[in-house]
Amino acid sequence: MIIVMGSGATEQQIDSIVKKIKEAGLDANISRGTERTVIGAIGDERKLEAEYFEALPGVEQAMHVVKPYKIVGREWHKQDSVIDIKGIPLGGKQVQIIAGPCSVETPEQMALAAQAVHATGCRLMRGGAFKPRTSPYAFQGHGAEGLAMFREAAKKYNLPIVTELMDARQIDTFLEYDVDVIQIGTRNMQNFDLLKEVGRTNKPVILKRGMSATIAEWLMSAEYIAAGGNHNIIFCERGIRTFETYYRNVLDVTAIPVLKKETHLPVIVDPSHAGGKAWMVPALSRAAIAAGADGLLVEMHPNPCEAWCDADQALNAGELKDLVGSLSLIAQAVGREI
Amino acid sequence: MIIVMGSGATEQQIDSIVKKIKEAGLDANISRGTERTVIGAIGDERKLEAEYFEALPGVEQAMHVVKPYKIVGREWHKQDSVIDIKGIPLGGKQVQIIAGPCSVETPEQMALAAQAVHATGCRLMRGGAFKPRTSPYAFQGHGAEGLAMFREAAKKYNLPIVTELMDARQIDTFLEYDVDVIQIGTRNMQNFDLLKEVGRTNKPVILKRGMSATIAEWLMSAEYIAAGGNHNIIFCERGIRTFETYYRNVLDVTAIPVLKKETHLPVIVDPSHAGGKAWMVPALSRAAIAAGADGLLVEMHPNPCEAWCDADQALNAGELKDLVGSLSLIAQAVGREI
Amino acid sequence: MIIVMGSGATEQQIDSIVKKIKEAGLDANISRGTERTVIGAIGDERKLEAEYFEALPGVEQAMHVVKPYKIVGREWHKQDSVIDIKGIPLGGKQVQIIAGPCSVETPEQMALAAQAVHATGCRLMRGGAFKPRTSPYAFQGHGAEGLAMFREAAKKYNLPIVTELMDARQIDTFLEYDVDVIQIGTRNMQNFDLLKEVGRTNKPVILKRGMSATIAEWLMSAEYIAAGGNHNIIFCERGIRTFETYYRNVLDVTAIPVLKKETHLPVIVDPSHAGGKAWMVPALSRAAIAAGADGLLVEMHPNPCEAWCDADQALNAGELKDLVGSLSLIAQAVGREI
Amino acid sequence: MIIVMGSGATEQQIDSIVKKIKEAGLDANISRGTERTVIGAIGDERKLEAEYFEALPGVEQAMHVVKPYKIVGREWHKQDSVIDIKGIPLGGKQVQIIAGPCSVETPEQMALAAQAVHATGCRLMRGGAFKPRTSPYAFQGHGAEGLAMFREAAKKYNLPIVTELMDARQIDTFLEYDVDVIQIGTRNMQNFDLLKEVGRTNKPVILKRGMSATIAEWLMSAEYIAAGGNHNIIFCERGIRTFETYYRNVLDVTAIPVLKKETHLPVIVDPSHAGGKAWMVPALSRAAIAAGADGLLVEMHPNPCEAWCDADQALNAGELKDLVGSLSLIAQAVGREI
Repeated sequence: MIIVMGSGATEQQIDSIVKKIKEAGLDANISRGTERTVIGAIGDERKLEAEYFEALPGVEQAMHVVKPYKIVGREWHKQDSVIDIKGIPLGGKQVQIIAGPCSVETPEQMALAAQAVHATGCRLMRGGAFKPRTSPYAFQGHGAEGLAMFREAAKKYNLPIVTELMDARQIDTFLEYDVDVIQIGTRNMQNFDLLKEVGRTNKPVILKRGMSATIAEWLMSAEYIAAGGNHNIIFCERGIRTFETYYRNVLDVTAIPVLKKETHLPVIVDPSHAGGKAWMVPALSRAAIAAGADGLLVEMHPNPCEAWCDADQALNAGELKDLVGSLSLIAQAVGREI
Repeated sequence: MIIVMGSGATEQQIDSIVKKIKEAGLDANISRGTERTVIGAIGDERKLEAEYFEALPGVEQAMHVVKPYKIVGREWHKQDSVIDIKGIPLGGKQVQIIAGPCSVETPEQMALAAQAVHATGCRLMRGGAFKPRTSPYAFQGHGAEGLAMFREAAKKYNLPIVTELMDARQIDTFLEYDVDVIQIGTRNMQNFDLLKEVGRTNKPVILKRGMSATIAEWLMSAEYIAAGGNHNIIFCERGIRTFETYYRNVLDVTAIPVLKKETHLPVIVDPSHAGGKAWMVPALSRAAIAAGADGLLVEMHPNPCEAWCDADQALNAGELKDLVGSLSLIAQAVGREI
Repeated sequence: MIIVMGSGATEQQIDSIVKKIKEAGLDANISRGTERTVIGAIGDERKLEAEYFEALPGVEQAMHVVKPYKIVGREWHKQDSVIDIKGIPLGGKQVQIIAGPCSVETPEQMALAAQAVHATGCRLMRGGAFKPRTSPYAFQGHGAEGLAMFREAAKKYNLPIVTELMDARQIDTFLEYDVDVIQIGTRNMQNFDLLKEVGRTNKPVILKRGMSATIAEWLMSAEYIAAGGNHNIIFCERGIRTFETYYRNVLDVTAIPVLKKETHLPVIVDPSHAGGKAWMVPALSRAAIAAGADGLLVEMHPNPCEAWCDADQALNAGELKDLVGSLSLIAQAVGREI
Repeated sequence: MIIVMGSGATEQQIDSIVKKIKEAGLDANISRGTERTVIGAIGDERKLEAEYFEALPGVEQAMHVVKPYKIVGREWHKQDSVIDIKGIPLGGKQVQIIAGPCSVETPEQMALAAQAVHATGCRLMRGGAFKPRTSPYAFQGHGAEGLAMFREAAKKYNLPIVTELMDARQIDTFLEYDVDVIQIGTRNMQNFDLLKEVGRTNKPVILKRGMSATIAEWLMSAEYIAAGGNHNIIFCERGIRTFETYYRNVLDVTAIPVLKKETHLPVIVDPSHAGGKAWMVPALSRAAIAAGADGLLVEMHPNPCEAWCDADQALNAGELKDLVGSLSLIAQAVGREI
């Protein structure tokens, strides 16, 4: 940790900081500049909190120089992690496209959706049974009954299922229906009790980025899951909130190479929630794969105009098929395959 | 709801929209402009979803014209609501300052804190037993044991206690320790299952604004609580996330008059988390009261330099006393009292 | 234009709005909903200002339904515009990579840079003679002398030159040195007098997006140039400002398909300023081309470590060559060529 | 400057950095931590650019520890600067309210406006002759003719005039009409050539904050003016751009105490452009004065409903009078007067 003293800091204040550092079991290096004195804390600085030092008299700023995350960091685990989802690899050479409807509506809809996902060559299916809706008066999802419908529809094509967990109290239900991949939604990225709970399972977890979460906060949320023992974590970039009002969110493609540098875990992209409109999905999907994403989470509905939620962002079966075709060429261009 | 058709929309597409509106039990008004046709849906438009219409062929944009919230909206409830907290009114003429440490640390610290809160004339006390921390390796709070310490310390001065609930599974513990005001933190503003849970109690709830939540989303989160039957809701502005890096968050004072216009419920401000530095707290507190806030949630620690978390943002007892004094004049200037 | 009346609007207020609309030469359509009355203004609504109506008693909100831009809009000009830059097409099948250093430093540096740009097969060259620097104490560019150096170096390989204009008073100097493409930088996107000035020339103009400009504002800035008579406009996305601090800006790839929908003019991307680090450039460049960009503006320096500004974001000649190679495959995947 | 080396940095890379620091005439301090080596550059670090070091092999991050601004910084000029505007002090005990219309429209409007400004006890008047409008088709202001009308109207009451300069080529016209305070608008905060130009005059300058400018960038823009010799600079916070769509901008009150700490120059607030609605102005004005602002820049129009621009944000004469009355109490509460 580096502690920058204010321009008027006294010798006594400097001594007092050094003493605090030594009390925590670290060593101190003092660098006296022309206008500022800088103190370096040498040792395991993860024990120190910047806020603690910033509250002490004479201190202008305190900064960590080492990464606060360990298990998920590439610094300690150089090679890419490949997550195994019922035999399907995520994070390796093969790019995975996880498709399916926003919400589980009826057995018929799910049967048609599963058929289309399978027919386009996608190997995993998504669908929501518990839905985080902005309004309490909107459809909240079918809940456990929805999981049953989803499980049933996916079984026919042997598609592993991905679905969102919103509440720690539902985790037993998820295990009972043998959900293959647990999704943590954007609004729960910092629901720490929920993260701890999925950290206790061994299920692959898709961790969506919070609407205005920094890369550092996102990595720390993954560290929560990893610290519980579950290292099967997949990051999912889904657009961030900005001042722009033309589209729902701004897909942050820069996050892809940055995460690839900071963590060994796979990174996928949700182009449907990012843009919020079906017509934006192909361009955003291509950009994501070109930038190095390991997969996509795409909304597809057998009949988008009749979808119960987010109707305007789902592709239909034909559009999904066309998309997969075009992505295949992009994947090849970056040395991957679909 | 207003539905704007694209410039090339056909008569058939317009007819189809009108049909959908009528199927939902509403009436349609068609306004043919020079370049665009606009369709108005007449009736209870809360039944309609904008996304649904935006997915239909020929539609450029669909917008609600009525507010999506009902119970919390001032449109249906003109006079200010005053929340009663063990006899202390929040939302009336008297401005309430809720002070206390970021986290419950020790019985001694809590005893000193309670004494200082009482001595400065504050009528409610805050303190965290369950702490949402960015890092899994940071102090997570004392949990139920912390609630016990807090209860014990506050009892002596008859101070109602305010503390954060992070997980629906802890609600019984909160009721057991008779927490007076349940705080929903910024990271849980859209944890809808948690909101539903506090909606089932009759405890006053402080609903902090999400880090990048719009006013509309915030009101809808309150509507979740209200829809469950609990109308004792207090909004708490605590700063929003922006591009600025000098301070932790940007205190959004504009939210105060805007909420006062949109809702009948009280609005308080947390100047400590907004700025992130103790020296910013007085100016921000004065701005909040001057803009019409009904109260403040301020961090105070008997010995800030030794605080276990957010040490750099807590006031000490003397600073709190000075602050209350200066706020008293501001309150008078806007026709309130402290 | 749509004017939504507040819930308590009186008949008199509604009449008054209708009168104002008719005074402006438009017609009015009144739609009386259950909770709100909506008035549509029929005719050329570009004559009306939303702010004007929002100030009138009883009005809740006023919104345009037609696009405020005409010349640059695709609604009135369906096919793609291809800009001719000394015989090199921008906006057609061929993707153009404009490379060169951040700033013109010395004749030797420019000679090496021009050679490298040419050797990698790029057909246009960039370089800054007038530099917008955050600090008054930083190198401000060589000015006119820099233009001379740039012109000289580019002549050998017949490379058209792209350089930034910061001040309307310099436009004669730009014409004198026959600058081929005038760049309007991010800080000047809404320097309306400068836009009017380049609108009077017939030089191709690269219009960079303002750091926090919306798509709509950006299109209106282009409309300023176009309204002056110069339709040779190229949009350049260069990253927007957000809360994320890991990278300088967030490259907004969604802007690419959105601009392609809204305007007939070409769209290029500056991956160097977006990410701010040379190692991010390849991934961002690939994403941009995959999303449909017509070209790139890339920083390349013969010796990045010695660059006088933005040293950390320039590629060297070898890296540029590798990048062009990898982009060629991406371009093919989307039916383009480099 | 502090240079943090990456975890795998070699001795040779460290030596090379030290050599570069010494070549620049500074000294180096090496602090070898458990996981990172940190190098401190000792001497006048303003000569060094962080980007230059971040481009060198082995470097993870480079950071300045001293402030990049000198003349405007409080570190070198402890006491508050009071700007003299034709005998009226800005920055002292007296809070100044600068009122007037958004744009100069007609001699009659200006006469009525000047009368109202004077009658409410305001000592300075604002009005725009050159208007930065998002659309090229909107009213662009009366230009020099508008300055003449403004001068004429203000003369009667001896009100110093404040008006916006958009283009360096107009500066002689401004001097000719003896404009008392030159306003640099939000879109020109980083129009560096314009800043240099006003730096060459001795006229007081109101420097509005860029829509998404950081405090540090804003201070550096002021430093541009100061470096030219003109130290009569007044900062004007006018709201920043965020994700919130309910109001035009978010008034950043935190900027007030922060600027007061960082600079000795006065800080005023524009509550009209911040919120964008007249009804928000009183609350925002009170918040600004309570937070320590030295003045306000308020839009007032003799007949807001007929204003040619920003009609919805102007107060009328009566509202201005009421506002000044209520602000008087707030000013007293913070030891100031109006």
